Amino acid sequence: MPPLKKITIKAPATIANLVCGFDILGMAINAPFDVMHLTLLDEERIVLKNTGIYPLPESVADNVAGAALTALIKAYELRPELKKPYPHIGFELVTDKKIKPGSGLGSSAASSAGAVVAANLLLDDLFSKEELVTFAMYGEKVASGVKHADNVAPCIYGGVTLVRSAHPLDIIPLPAPPLHITVVHPQIEVRTSDARQILRKEVLLKTAIKQWGNIAGLVAGLFRNDYNLIGNSLSDEIIEPTRSILIPGFQKIKDAGKAIGCLGGGISGSGPSIFMLSKEEQTAQDIAGYMGDVYDKLGIDFHCYVTALNTQGITASTF
Amino acid sequence: MPPLKKITIKAPATIANLVCGFDILGMAINAPFDVMHLTLLDEERIVLKNTGIYPLPESVADNVAGAALTALIKAYELRPELKKPYPHIGFELVTDKKIKPGSGLGSSAASSAGAVVAANLLLDDLFSKEELVTFAMYGEKVASGVKHADNVAPCIYGGVTLVRSAHPLDIIPLPAPPLHITVVHPQIEVRTSDARQILRKEVLLKTAIKQWGNIAGLVAGLFRNDYNLIGNSLSDEIIEPTRSILIPGFQKIKDAGKAIGCLGGGISGSGPSIFMLSKEEQTAQDIAGYMGDVYDKLGIDFHCYVTALNTQGITASTF
Repeated sequence: MPPLKKITIKAPATIANLVCGFDILGMAINAPFDVMHLTLLDEERIVLKNTGIYPLPESVADNVAGAALTALIKAYELRPELKKPYPHIGFELVTDKKIKPGSGLGSSAASSAGAVVAANLLLDDLFSKEELVTFAMYGEKVASGVKHADNVAPCIYGGVTLVRSAHPLDIIPLPAPPLHITVVHPQIEVRTSDARQILRKEVLLKTAIKQWGNIAGLVAGLFRNDYNLIGNSLSDEIIEPTRSILIPGFQKIKDAGKAIGCLGGGISGSGPSIFMLSKEEQTAQDIAGYMGDVYDKLGIDFHCYVTALNTQGITASTF
Repeated sequence: MPPLKKITIKAPATIANLVCGFDILGMAINAPFDVMHLTLLDEERIVLKNTGIYPLPESVADNVAGAALTALIKAYELRPELKKPYPHIGFELVTDKKIKPGSGLGSSAASSAGAVVAANLLLDDLFSKEELVTFAMYGEKVASGVKHADNVAPCIYGGVTLVRSAHPLDIIPLPAPPLHITVVHPQIEVRTSDARQILRKEVLLKTAIKQWGNIAGLVAGLFRNDYNLIGNSLSDEIIEPTRSILIPGFQKIKDAGKAIGCLGGGISGSGPSIFMLSKEEQTAQDIAGYMGDVYDKLGIDFHCYVTALNTQGITASTF
């Protein structure tokens, strides 16, 4: 049967945790982003194609976008209250992945979220944003074993999001002032599962108190457009001291960021990418130069992005 | 020598922690409150008098207001950059304490903060609010051994405050929608030091993550005037399960609060007072009636207050 409709979308990279908000905060950024072409089919079937340079799993169950689309199709089939435009649906997805898997920039989230948001656009907004997050979380489970929402939520909502609770899901979009973001991705491998395993299962209460003071401060700073408060709150004594060991050059870049005038920054997601937030674009450019120097000296290849807060989330593309 | 000036102030009770914000959040309430009469003297001397029904330490060093005033006088004497209206200062303080010590309602904070705010009014606002908090924290150290700010900050600033960091001090006043507050103080003794000792020194990371999700949610809810979000965020799996054991009737009152339609609530400070937040005054009245029934049945005397968020902090009184 002929395809029903087609769409092309852009799915942005995301920075999970935002230093102090481990597992609850995330932010979408304008670059890098994935491009995905989705075709709606009128039978229950998923076809996956990859035109990008990074290999992706071909089987639907092992592919994060496949898993997310499967969850969406299941909801479509099982929920009689939905106003279905077609008796059955399926999808052909062509992914041009630009966010490198394993970069800590929400590559799997972009695939999972991009696929289901594109699907929803083809289905005339049948599902809510929150439902789309739940579908995309199935993709995250394939990628990391955990149905976490801290990347898929900002990817879908745009801006900064708080996942107050993952089960039951409660996503709160947060405001934010304009922000320039510098990201460096050193070409070393840190697996999300390894980055999780090295974390201690218990934390000192007094350290946790510092952390939640900073989280509360960061949220207040975002509401108030208070760059100083945002900067002062970007501190993490729980996750960063352990995980940063896996990332050469981390401390140098962080110290330089403060010295140069960045608001602050840290590990993006579970790494190895490092990000810095700046109020001024020039500061974001300056720290990018420094990041490059650090990895040049270490002899480690890297990608660097100087970008800005993405406020739209996933958008239909005019490519 | 004759006294220079006199003032009378009202210092409100405060609710520290606000369920999920252990050691960082606090809220001022309209009732109960202490009344304090402060006279400025022109020599370095502190005289303390007590006209209330509760015994208070008579020695300046052991009295929380005495310790706070001592810190203020020391700063006055030692800081040459201050525009001092008098060469030397001292105070006579008459306290009419209405917030029972050991109630968990910030009784020591009201004394400490009330004394230094009154002193500052007599000194034509020589010190900033943040400096007054640091003086009052010396009183808190006398009371509990810890220079904490989660009660003195809301007492001085009014409303809801975040102590993002105690050392160095960073206080962030937070907005809040109108709130009705019901407080019950069962006449049992829970010492702050005991309530601290029973806490575990370590917490599970996964529990801490839930907690900071709720803290972030509560702060966002306060900024957004979102009563649902405030209510959903009022959850504490770290402190309350341990401390509530010390408070008979706690779980019954909490369950009833939810059933009646309160937003939520929990232990005020380190207890034994219990508070409930409500959107509607009738709900606040209803839970007050239930609280009374619980303690009547348990044969425990109690005080109950149905009051509202105090947005002014300490104010000069027209008594």
